[in-house]
Amino acid sequence: MEKTIVLIGTLDTKGAEYRYIRDRIVEQGCRVIVVDVGIRGKPLFQPDITREQVAQAAGLSIEEVASRIEGEGIQMMSRGAAKIVQELHRSGKLDGILSLGGTMGTFAGTAVMRTLPLGVPKVMVSTHASGDTSPYVGTKDIVMIPSMADIIGLNQITKNVLTMAAGAVVGMVKVAPGPVSSDKPLIGLTIHGDLMPCANFVTELLGQRGYEVVFFHAVGIGGKTLEEWIEQGLIDGVFDLVTTEVLQNIFGGLYDAGPTRLEAAGAKGIPQLVAPGKTDTITFDTTHGIPERFRSRELYLHTPVRVGTSTTKEERAQLGKVMAEKLNKATGPTAVIIPQKGFSGGDKEGSYMYDPEADLALINALKKNLKPDIRLVEVDAHINDRLFAEKAATLLDELMHEARR
Amino acid sequence: MEKTIVLIGTLDTKGAEYRYIRDRIVEQGCRVIVVDVGIRGKPLFQPDITREQVAQAAGLSIEEVASRIEGEGIQMMSRGAAKIVQELHRSGKLDGILSLGGTMGTFAGTAVMRTLPLGVPKVMVSTHASGDTSPYVGTKDIVMIPSMADIIGLNQITKNVLTMAAGAVVGMVKVAPGPVSSDKPLIGLTIHGDLMPCANFVTELLGQRGYEVVFFHAVGIGGKTLEEWIEQGLIDGVFDLVTTEVLQNIFGGLYDAGPTRLEAAGAKGIPQLVAPGKTDTITFDTTHGIPERFRSRELYLHTPVRVGTSTTKEERAQLGKVMAEKLNKATGPTAVIIPQKGFSGGDKEGSYMYDPEADLALINALKKNLKPDIRLVEVDAHINDRLFAEKAATLLDELMHEARR
Repeated sequence: MEKTIVLIGTLDTKGAEYRYIRDRIVEQGCRVIVVDVGIRGKPLFQPDITREQVAQAAGLSIEEVASRIEGEGIQMMSRGAAKIVQELHRSGKLDGILSLGGTMGTFAGTAVMRTLPLGVPKVMVSTHASGDTSPYVGTKDIVMIPSMADIIGLNQITKNVLTMAAGAVVGMVKVAPGPVSSDKPLIGLTIHGDLMPCANFVTELLGQRGYEVVFFHAVGIGGKTLEEWIEQGLIDGVFDLVTTEVLQNIFGGLYDAGPTRLEAAGAKGIPQLVAPGKTDTITFDTTHGIPERFRSRELYLHTPVRVGTSTTKEERAQLGKVMAEKLNKATGPTAVIIPQKGFSGGDKEGSYMYDPEADLALINALKKNLKPDIRLVEVDAHINDRLFAEKAATLLDELMHEARR
Repeated sequence: MEKTIVLIGTLDTKGAEYRYIRDRIVEQGCRVIVVDVGIRGKPLFQPDITREQVAQAAGLSIEEVASRIEGEGIQMMSRGAAKIVQELHRSGKLDGILSLGGTMGTFAGTAVMRTLPLGVPKVMVSTHASGDTSPYVGTKDIVMIPSMADIIGLNQITKNVLTMAAGAVVGMVKVAPGPVSSDKPLIGLTIHGDLMPCANFVTELLGQRGYEVVFFHAVGIGGKTLEEWIEQGLIDGVFDLVTTEVLQNIFGGLYDAGPTRLEAAGAKGIPQLVAPGKTDTITFDTTHGIPERFRSRELYLHTPVRVGTSTTKEERAQLGKVMAEKLNKATGPTAVIIPQKGFSGGDKEGSYMYDPEADLALINALKKNLKPDIRLVEVDAHINDRLFAEKAATLLDELMHEARR
């Protein structure tokens, strides 16, 4: 069946460029629906959905929108366009979406894309693909294509980039498997490269029990994505193995997933098992500098732009208290599991970061502050030992059964 | 002709995932060359180019590489892989490249991709697509696809993402127009949304004279890209209309292109015409905070995450001195052109940011510090007036002819 790609664009300032990419997409056998979100001059060609219709979808007239300062007007148009694309998607008329933009165009285009479900191809050709993309991509599956030179005027560079972007979105819609779905209960597992032995054991053991495990790399965006998926009801249970993001939020580390990390599962009432994986380490981006309090500690190179350092007993105790407070609010089955012989690859007997006293400070703070009905299970093993994974898989399976009762 | 996509990956830790995406690419009619850069366990399947060959290309044995700490070993493997893919590309055996990765994988995969020319499809499926991508993308045309969940294990989420990534890279290589080339001299023009009237006039006027104009959005990465293209010999002449990046480098603004901005054209000896576009404004990212010295000034909303504020006479004078020092080092035809009636959309008689005294401080600092053989032309017009664009196009055309003599 013929697939449809929706283009969201300003047909006044970038009319020629949208016409060019539209023609490249049609050449490859897809339909195109063009939505005009321009508010300055006249559209260069007739869109399928006009700017008047977009403004109306936002509850305004195009004159009202045009009278605002530009930043505000564009926000209004992206609200209207979001309603329109959601309706197109619901009625089966949107298989993929593409937009081109500089600063404002990227802001508006991705705001619209972020309202569409996971698995719908989303391509943003942008002058802001190299830099901090988190305001644009967020926790969504938006593909950012660097525009290299600016997407203004049709020259050898822009034609090259637009042709390739058309190829990318057409290639994606042709193979897109459609909405994500599975018969098996889906377990969200937070991971880190260092803890892959544990993650692999747990995945194998939970797989044997009929679960499917999805991994979230706990580097800030991973934890955020997990929690957003929990809120959306995509996740049935959580093994929060790597909780370093809570630590990094408290002390200003790079892998910060925000102040509400570790709260989504509890709020949603789904089963959660929590471990202190990688809470011995805090990570910094060398290009942005290292906070004062950590500068005198020993630093470990991860990549040339990332370094880690260990945390003290006091910091660990503070973390334990914060974690307990978050878990105490949980409305679903909740338990904590502790590997007594170390929390990370480096935190292991004989290894360079081994610090059992600091580990104990976290354990004691958890014990002191957790509500009595939240189980805390200690395992005489290192976090990467198979024994720890076995206990964890069994315990999570119990929590999943509790939830079903 | 059948196209070839090169996969760069660790066949030990992500063997199943690479096999899955390889099969999805082959299904769509492309050849695949798999390059194994793993240094931990055994490869899950036989690659086309082994880790031993990759280490050898870096001048080392795989045992030497494996004995290093992980971050270093991976850097060595990416150096070896870069040599291999460059050779594959030269011999016509690489039409596109794809890699999957977490922190280290993204670092290594993009380091390899950045060594390939503009216009070769480059796709990185990464846990780091939402966040600061500049260490990975840099000034290159690398497409970042968010992995959403981690790319470990084949589950409904990872299969969805890998299938779509295969679609994207296949779609791109099928339409890739090949190396960028043109018979017309290519002029790099720095722009900003605010100065589009000027940019459009200049493009039209230079087009009439037989030039092709490529736009660089001067938001940090745009200026960097322009200067890198100049170094690579892709640009024949420059109209540096928007030099706010120099200002933002001095005073800590968001649109910072580094301390060497405005020096590449001079070092290369190509003709350059320089204007003070948008040097009245400095921009900040509200999510990262605004430096102390600017907090008490009036702020203008650009998008919800970006604000601008105006600069003082003293700041403008300092900028003029810095610009003059940079231009004084130029080895090719160089001139400065000044629109006397304002440097930006807001810096215009009757408008909210109009400040002719501050503009004059910049002009005087340029006059005082520029070498006498660098022409400074003042035009009795606003930067967006057609008259200014006419004078600029004529002057740049003269500089281009000087260079040919």
